[in-house]
Amino acid sequence: MQTPHKIAVVGSGLVGTLLAIYLKRAGHTVDVYDRSPDIRTVEFSGRSINLVMSNRGWKALEDVGLAEEIRKIGIPVDKRGIHLQDGTLNYQAYGKEGEAIFSLSRGILNRKMVDLAEKEGVNFFFEHKIWDVNLATATLFEGDSEQGNWTELKYDKVFGADGAFSRIRHRMQRQSMFDYSQEFMKIGYKELYIPANADGSAKIDINSLHIWPRGNFMLMGLANLDNSFTCTLFMPIEGENSFAKIKDEASLVTFFDKYFPDTKEVIPDLVRDFFKNPTSYLAIMKCFPWTYEDKVALIGDSSHAIVPFYGQGMNAGFEDITILSEMMQKYGDDWKTIFKEYEISRKPNADAIAELSLRNFIEMSDLTADANFILQKKIEKWFSDKHPEKWMPLYSRVTFSLQPYSEALAIGDFQNEIMQEVLQMENIEQLWDSKEVENKILELLQD
Amino acid sequence: MQTPHKIAVVGSGLVGTLLAIYLKRAGHTVDVYDRSPDIRTVEFSGRSINLVMSNRGWKALEDVGLAEEIRKIGIPVDKRGIHLQDGTLNYQAYGKEGEAIFSLSRGILNRKMVDLAEKEGVNFFFEHKIWDVNLATATLFEGDSEQGNWTELKYDKVFGADGAFSRIRHRMQRQSMFDYSQEFMKIGYKELYIPANADGSAKIDINSLHIWPRGNFMLMGLANLDNSFTCTLFMPIEGENSFAKIKDEASLVTFFDKYFPDTKEVIPDLVRDFFKNPTSYLAIMKCFPWTYEDKVALIGDSSHAIVPFYGQGMNAGFEDITILSEMMQKYGDDWKTIFKEYEISRKPNADAIAELSLRNFIEMSDLTADANFILQKKIEKWFSDKHPEKWMPLYSRVTFSLQPYSEALAIGDFQNEIMQEVLQMENIEQLWDSKEVENKILELLQD
Repeated sequence: MQTPHKIAVVGSGLVGTLLAIYLKRAGHTVDVYDRSPDIRTVEFSGRSINLVMSNRGWKALEDVGLAEEIRKIGIPVDKRGIHLQDGTLNYQAYGKEGEAIFSLSRGILNRKMVDLAEKEGVNFFFEHKIWDVNLATATLFEGDSEQGNWTELKYDKVFGADGAFSRIRHRMQRQSMFDYSQEFMKIGYKELYIPANADGSAKIDINSLHIWPRGNFMLMGLANLDNSFTCTLFMPIEGENSFAKIKDEASLVTFFDKYFPDTKEVIPDLVRDFFKNPTSYLAIMKCFPWTYEDKVALIGDSSHAIVPFYGQGMNAGFEDITILSEMMQKYGDDWKTIFKEYEISRKPNADAIAELSLRNFIEMSDLTADANFILQKKIEKWFSDKHPEKWMPLYSRVTFSLQPYSEALAIGDFQNEIMQEVLQMENIEQLWDSKEVENKILELLQD
Repeated sequence: MQTPHKIAVVGSGLVGTLLAIYLKRAGHTVDVYDRSPDIRTVEFSGRSINLVMSNRGWKALEDVGLAEEIRKIGIPVDKRGIHLQDGTLNYQAYGKEGEAIFSLSRGILNRKMVDLAEKEGVNFFFEHKIWDVNLATATLFEGDSEQGNWTELKYDKVFGADGAFSRIRHRMQRQSMFDYSQEFMKIGYKELYIPANADGSAKIDINSLHIWPRGNFMLMGLANLDNSFTCTLFMPIEGENSFAKIKDEASLVTFFDKYFPDTKEVIPDLVRDFFKNPTSYLAIMKCFPWTYEDKVALIGDSSHAIVPFYGQGMNAGFEDITILSEMMQKYGDDWKTIFKEYEISRKPNADAIAELSLRNFIEMSDLTADANFILQKKIEKWFSDKHPEKWMPLYSRVTFSLQPYSEALAIGDFQNEIMQEVLQMENIEQLWDSKEVENKILELLQD
């Protein structure tokens, strides 16, 4: 057991609340600050991609006995549903029989997590704006406005779980030897909505992640508990098919008629939603170090904001907590070592999932409609079923295993090189499940 | 002529003062703000690598008739003086006969530039701290402290020439779609000093940039007007030979005796200077965009801080001014286009000189002592003398031409590929100036 400390967590999002539960269980006094009102008291804003929970997220919840509680508000999703432009709908399984990711509403999940944290005895201070931090003394500065009067809040430790635009990281950034980058994608996104049928049934399969891949843009949809779907249109901000080009109702309808004809019946309020909902942006944030002495640590998006295309943002943040917790158990009261080992362990994995997530936009929006890519996936699945100990597809490593992301990335690249050679084989379309292909892969695995 | 505007320049460094002169000449009212006292009234801090001015810097000064004035306070440097560990001293010419860079003291140059700007009618406000800017209205916020009361200063345009840790960029960074990165090198630096002899003569050649290359660390020296030398030790912050390892007088003297034996006589106050002078850090800052509408623009280090190993930091900043001025002449009162074209023109060149400067650390600290590299330089010089229209060495493109940095980088990479092939030729050490080598290069240039 650690010596009890007074700990502040800045941010009451998913990572902040779960971290607070872990710290409380470890015997500390935990105060969580958030600039926003209590999420349980507000309407949702309609500006959040639905989340998917996969193995890394479940692991962090299971370790504190919360997985069952959360599983009740999720919907298992075991495949992609690929909607081609000609109306064809194909399904691609994500993993083996029985493997699934879980679709969750960010808002519903976050409310649940605050409830659970409160039950544990975590103290929440909503509508408390943290503007700055003294890193050396773990003192927070709180007030109504950036230029107004601030109250000093002294803690033993401070965690910055305050997201991609973290104020805690903002202070760290102004130190010497702090590496930091923020990079915005040239792609924006907008939420759309597929309601349930009048009888409460779903218009499309709820156990699929639906994708309408169209090259450099795509629509995707994930089911909600009420059989409606939250959809997200990802599209370049400027250029040929872009948000800039869709200026009015006519251009919107023409665009959807051309590229997403099969959505006409399922998205009734397209025009209203498109022009009412904001266009949001996607950024990748990286930094190092993540901690300051034994006083301050960043966790989740504040230290590694990624793009959403692998569905790993929350999972990576929850895995931060798993690793931090392991270090707390290993190093007891030596917080300097806990923080140092935590950041050294997590940084290469955060970089790897950032890279994998970026690459997955191309996979989702373009490759899922590509015959060669579909064949590659088919061969991988076939070979993996035959030799499960020799081949786990990259998606499964990332999603259904706890293998460090950096290893998954490296092995995935190696496997991809092998598959590129295999796809060069003559008549591979016909011979894909032959002994010859099997031997070729086995041989390439030896190299 | 442009419509006169009220323009604020934040930062009275080299780029800020020269920009102010250009803007004043163009008919504007120009106020320069700096948080520091007037540099003409303070002692220098002993924390600045000497500068070198080369063609791009001279071009910007010549266009406003200031080059002659500045040339008087510089020392021409036409070669590297390479001090090997065994005491051998070799010289490597920088360019052709008559080509030289100019060594300048940052402090003396900056004082001169403030004098010149004041003479032009630029208004200076020293010890005025700018904490924030409203980008949409070009309003500066000035005050004694970040949390104190601020005065609003309304302008038509604001230029952020406030260096690597720019407050103006800091505000821009908090916008959506603003890309930004800061990366610190694992190498630090410290100033040392070679005084002149008692009779006023110099201890080593003043027309050379002296380098003591030792692999992953090096010492360098540039002459001052009084025949003393400002030296800089560049060395890893941690590791085998590092600042972390030199903890006391004994370890310092042992280290210098081993690696820099020929400096014993010329750096008399090594111990005092080493422990008195701070260890400084090197960072690379990149961002985009550099401007906001027709209101705010970044210039110099605030938009592209680079490492000093190519001696191009100030030159790149001065070239920003040349290009901005060209755009002002081309687009008149259309400042939105001026700013847009300025940033589009400069960004790839700023990225290129950032890359070239980083690579040049390896060239200076390691390759200058490498026989293969010396041979390559010799062949390039020989071939370039024979075929000046076919080959200009990369260093000359960067230093003695006005070719855009991005082109210099691309052509330099192409030339280097050719040289790597040439160095593979049998007996190249003997045949380096043969017809065979000449023909080989001519042939490779055709590809």
